Amino acid sequence: MLKFNLLKESNEIQSSNKSKARLGTITTDHGEIQTPVFMPVGTLGSVKSVSKEDLDHCNAQIILGNTYHLYLRPGCEVIEHMEGLHEFISWDKPMLTDSGGFQFFSLAKLAQFTEEGVSFQSHIDGSRHFFSPEKAVEIQMILGSDIMMSLDWCIGYPSSEEKVMDALNKTTVWAKRGFDFWKEKGGANNLFGIIQGGMYKHLRSLSAQQLTEIDFPGFAIGGLSVGEPRELMYEMADHTLPLLPRDKPRYIMGVGTPENLVELVGMGCDMFDCVMPSRNARNGQLFTTTGTKNIYNAKFRFDKNPIDENCDCYTCQNYSLSYLRHLYKSRELLAYRLNTIHNIYYYIQLMEKMREAIKHDKFLDFKKAFYQKRDQI
Amino acid sequence: MLKFNLLKESNEIQSSNKSKARLGTITTDHGEIQTPVFMPVGTLGSVKSVSKEDLDHCNAQIILGNTYHLYLRPGCEVIEHMEGLHEFISWDKPMLTDSGGFQFFSLAKLAQFTEEGVSFQSHIDGSRHFFSPEKAVEIQMILGSDIMMSLDWCIGYPSSEEKVMDALNKTTVWAKRGFDFWKEKGGANNLFGIIQGGMYKHLRSLSAQQLTEIDFPGFAIGGLSVGEPRELMYEMADHTLPLLPRDKPRYIMGVGTPENLVELVGMGCDMFDCVMPSRNARNGQLFTTTGTKNIYNAKFRFDKNPIDENCDCYTCQNYSLSYLRHLYKSRELLAYRLNTIHNIYYYIQLMEKMREAIKHDKFLDFKKAFYQKRDQI
Repeated sequence: MLKFNLLKESNEIQSSNKSKARLGTITTDHGEIQTPVFMPVGTLGSVKSVSKEDLDHCNAQIILGNTYHLYLRPGCEVIEHMEGLHEFISWDKPMLTDSGGFQFFSLAKLAQFTEEGVSFQSHIDGSRHFFSPEKAVEIQMILGSDIMMSLDWCIGYPSSEEKVMDALNKTTVWAKRGFDFWKEKGGANNLFGIIQGGMYKHLRSLSAQQLTEIDFPGFAIGGLSVGEPRELMYEMADHTLPLLPRDKPRYIMGVGTPENLVELVGMGCDMFDCVMPSRNARNGQLFTTTGTKNIYNAKFRFDKNPIDENCDCYTCQNYSLSYLRHLYKSRELLAYRLNTIHNIYYYIQLMEKMREAIKHDKFLDFKKAFYQKRDQI
Repeated sequence: MLKFNLLKESNEIQSSNKSKARLGTITTDHGEIQTPVFMPVGTLGSVKSVSKEDLDHCNAQIILGNTYHLYLRPGCEVIEHMEGLHEFISWDKPMLTDSGGFQFFSLAKLAQFTEEGVSFQSHIDGSRHFFSPEKAVEIQMILGSDIMMSLDWCIGYPSSEEKVMDALNKTTVWAKRGFDFWKEKGGANNLFGIIQGGMYKHLRSLSAQQLTEIDFPGFAIGGLSVGEPRELMYEMADHTLPLLPRDKPRYIMGVGTPENLVELVGMGCDMFDCVMPSRNARNGQLFTTTGTKNIYNAKFRFDKNPIDENCDCYTCQNYSLSYLRHLYKSRELLAYRLNTIHNIYYYIQLMEKMREAIKHDKFLDFKKAFYQKRDQI
């Protein structure tokens, strides 16, 4: 069972700005995680284009795997035979797996939600499958995730109050069933509950109330970053985070941009995951302290500088913008890896800098400087 | 200027088998190369999917770049501005570049060969360009290759004696012009001549005679592996290699399979390059001491073993066939890198083993064992 050690809560106030940032440590069977933490996404058991050594270089503390995807390919029978996901992919640090809930929303064909669970068609071959909340936990136990997620019902934006309410209710019922199943099976590792409630504050409150009645070792906020305006996302997060237990980790799923991370850490969120650093890397978008660079840009053709002069990542220490542009334009496979290393390094460095700032009661100063550097572009 | 130190010539004879294998050292401005050597191909300034550290891990002593490709993309002006190909791609060991001759044969649209040179259309955007033998050298001097290749006229199989003769004559004229230009420009680094002559022994003899009259620091045999039967390729190589100076490196271009390398080393060839290990890796074909494995094969689904139990490469030391198959089936980018590391490691290990065998007068024994292991499949 996970141990969460809340080391510090910000008390900073500067005029109308207030930091509610938190500093903590999550201890799992595969090691410790310093929070706030960003978790790179390894959907199919591989953070796209990089190796475990690359992730070590980036100081990745924990990575994500995806239950829906791994269930379909290579299949649980393979991962069970290989003695779990850690062994299979050769990763010995903590791992979190989501429940598949988000993929039923975003990917699976003709997903049908009932009280019992979700029946769906594989996006790969159209084969029919069924996930119950119990099955979602059972699969994640086979995967051997350090942090498993409850099956939830995620819905898009905008959605009617009625529809959101219905999804919220199912999510609660499923959360209880998943939790009971997990406990019944011995309660190894950890299972987090997921708060839903769309963009309705009172429904977020209701979901938080119902979910926190269950003794999950941690809580996530799901159903954000599904197309709503940024300000609305912040409003929902800021409303919901304080409703979650102070002594347990708080995780906002699938978010987001560097700006999102800074804002949400300031609201007291501890954990993040997003495909953005790796996906954008493959699309040639590189994050820097002064904003985003598009490696395709002709102005880099003769540029001997690294992506970011202040970056210590392998890519910046070894390669010029000129070479990276050439690799990317030539569709050389190395381009995707070098770009991804840089972006993941950037994201994880950003979290490290925030932890450092929180520690020294300088989070609001950090935030100010963060935005100022980006304005200089 | 390159220094070639011929350390040993095989004297082994076993019934009808004779080894003419050689052991040597090539010294360049970027370091020493033990021969016989296999040179991984980095067409566009990147050995596809791997990094320089991966190449170091594979004990790559020298890599190839491609003049035709680099001239078109990123263009000489970029590489000149970046102070040469070594600096541009961040590789500090020896590098060899071919002249573009083979690409005019295989890739460029509407290449027109005249006494003066080759006019051609870019395979990328159809733009028109012209290479003279002088220009081919000039570009390679900008690239800063440790070993440059003369512009040659490569033709396919089968070709008439007349056509081969014509290409041979042009190749000789171009070789002289390229050589004179190189000397005139100071004779930095090294320029190799390329023997042509198709599948006609007397024309191979003639080309060898004409080319070796020029004081190139090394010689290559071109125009092999262009569609002819394997036995014919061996016949041409075995005929031509002894016609080349004993005290200079001998390089057969663009060849080949592991079996080809073993045969041609036995005939006294010192240098090889081929896209086969990297291209086949990307196609899921993995080389092992007992033959080739197709990673897509369903029989590997539950296989906890590495690709090759006797292999010390990063891939074999860290990952199972089951995981590699999953990555490959899922088109994860990591698959291409892991497969490529293994295949290049295999090729370079094969050369190391051959050097060791030559050193101890065991080359014929090595060759016998090499084929026996493959027969056990």
